[in-house]
This record gives sequence, structure tokens and C-alpha cells, in this order.
Amino acid sequence: MKEHLTCPSCGSVIARYRNPFPTVDIIIRDDSGQVVLIERRNEPAGWALPGGFVDYGETLETAALRETREETGLELVELRQFHAYSDPARDPRQHNISVVFTACGVGTLQAGDDAKNARWFPLGALPSPLCFDHAKILADFQKTVTRDP
Amino acid sequence: MKEHLTCPSCGSVIARYRNPFPTVDIIIRDDSGQVVLIERRNEPAGWALPGGFVDYGETLETAALRETREETGLELVELRQFHAYSDPARDPRQHNISVVFTACGVGTLQAGDDAKNARWFPLGALPSPLCFDHAKILADFQKTVTRDP
Repeated sequence: MKEHLTCPSCGSVIARYRNPFPTVDIIIRDDSGQVVLIERRNEPAGWALPGGFVDYGETLETAALRETREETGLELVELRQFHAYSDPARDPRQHNISVVFTACGVGTLQAGDDAKNARWFPLGALPSPLCFDHAKILADFQKTVTRDP
Repeated sequence: MKEHLTCPSCGSVIARYRNPFPTVDIIIRDDSGQVVLIERRNEPAGWALPGGFVDYGETLETAALRETREETGLELVELRQFHAYSDPARDPRQHNISVVFTACGVGTLQAGDDAKNARWFPLGALPSPLCFDHAKILADFQKTVTRDP
């Protein structure tokens, strides 16, 4: 699919291939079945997993560490890929593909950057609705937690 | 990171956010430890896993089915996400992030589209070198095959 940019100087239309945008989201969990959510400062407003866009030249893992640090103040250990979510309708802004990680957080949880709040929530008592497809992601995650002894 | 486009009409420079490009690669396996590789028609030339760019508006899974069909003539069953690879140096052309799948192929293997050849190779006798980071991907895959009873 092509996108059409308009040159701000002469108004010419420039056709370019359009690609989905790579993002990461991180399920930061503890041993008692809680996960970290942030309250977004930007639209769409609401509670969501920490995450954001992957920079050009940055690995997915580095993006996960950076976004977590920026939004929650936490460092991550045991960072593992969970699953990639790519439904074009999962984000109302544009087609964002998310590679979701699980990890444990180290440090003191503190909202930063574009998060106006950050809190631990029990998986059984999440706020509703969550932004994007994060309710589905956490439901998928909860199945794996329940399955593992 | 920003990229700078030049307007083909007036020569103005347009700055835009640059993102890595989402791609998929597919490990098509059989029960006897063989996988499908294609010989690329385009640069970089050589043997590689089937795969390609994810279109805007297309899921990763749909892209995997489409690219496999285009390059090998096969349909896929038991399609599962394996792992995402995102080292910025993994593709010499640009920063391409690949979500790699495993699957079984159905039908007759036949090179098509931008593949000039398509063949089954035993995991223990792969051509060398493979394009991109596909030798590493297949080494990671082989570990999981060896581990599972």
C-alpha cells in the first residue's frame, strides 16, 4: 500500500510505500499476580501497558528497556518475548504492530514521560476498558500464568 | 531518528520520523528435520528463508501465508510465532525487524515470484552462508527441535 505525502514547499504529491509501525509493550509482573499499568497522558487516554515505538537502529529489547525506564522508572530483568500482535484495528491511530514482552521490574515504580500515573494491578482486578488490545494481551498472558504450575 | 526525503518536483528536503520495517520469515519444516529455503532473485543473492515485507493493513500471519504462497507455492498449516529478530545489522539494506514463524507446508514446492529456486534442505546440511541472520535463526530453531522429544 502506498501513502501520499504533500511537499510543504511546492504542494507536489509524493507516493511512498507504507509500512506498519513496529512498537513494543511490556507486561511487568511480580510473583503475586500483579502487573504494571500506566495511565496515558496522550490520546487514546486510559490505562495501558507501558510501551511505545521502536526507534530506527534500535532492537526490540532495547526499546522495551527504554520505554519502561521512561514511563515507569523501572529497570527490567528476565525480559522475554511473549507474542506479537498485529491486527490493523488494534490501535485507532494507525497500523502499529506490537511485540509484547514479559519481564520483572526492579526499582521504585514512578510515572514519568508521557505517563501521568503508574500502578500495580492484580490480574484479576484490572481497570476496564484498557487502551488498544491490551485487555486481550493480558487475557492471553493470564492463560499462560494459570497453565504454568 | 528522522529521515530526509527530497521532493522530486522542487528539491525541498522533508524531514520525517523513520521507523524500522516489519517483515516476516517462515521456517517451513517437515517431520524428518528438513526446512524449505529459497534462492533469492534480488540482492542480497543467496539462499534464505521464505519471507518479506508486511503490508500496511495486513497481519503478520496473513503476510506469512502470502509470502510463502508467492515464493514457494505452498500453503501453511500449524502456523506459529517462533521469535522476533531485530538487530539493526541483520539485513544489509536497512533496519528490517523480522517476526519468524514455524509451520508445515502443504502442496508442491515450486519457486515463484522473486525466488529463482526453492528446495528442502536437511537442518544438518544447510547451504552456507545463508542470507541475513537466517543461519542464526535456523540454529535457534534447531535447538528447540533437539530439545523437544
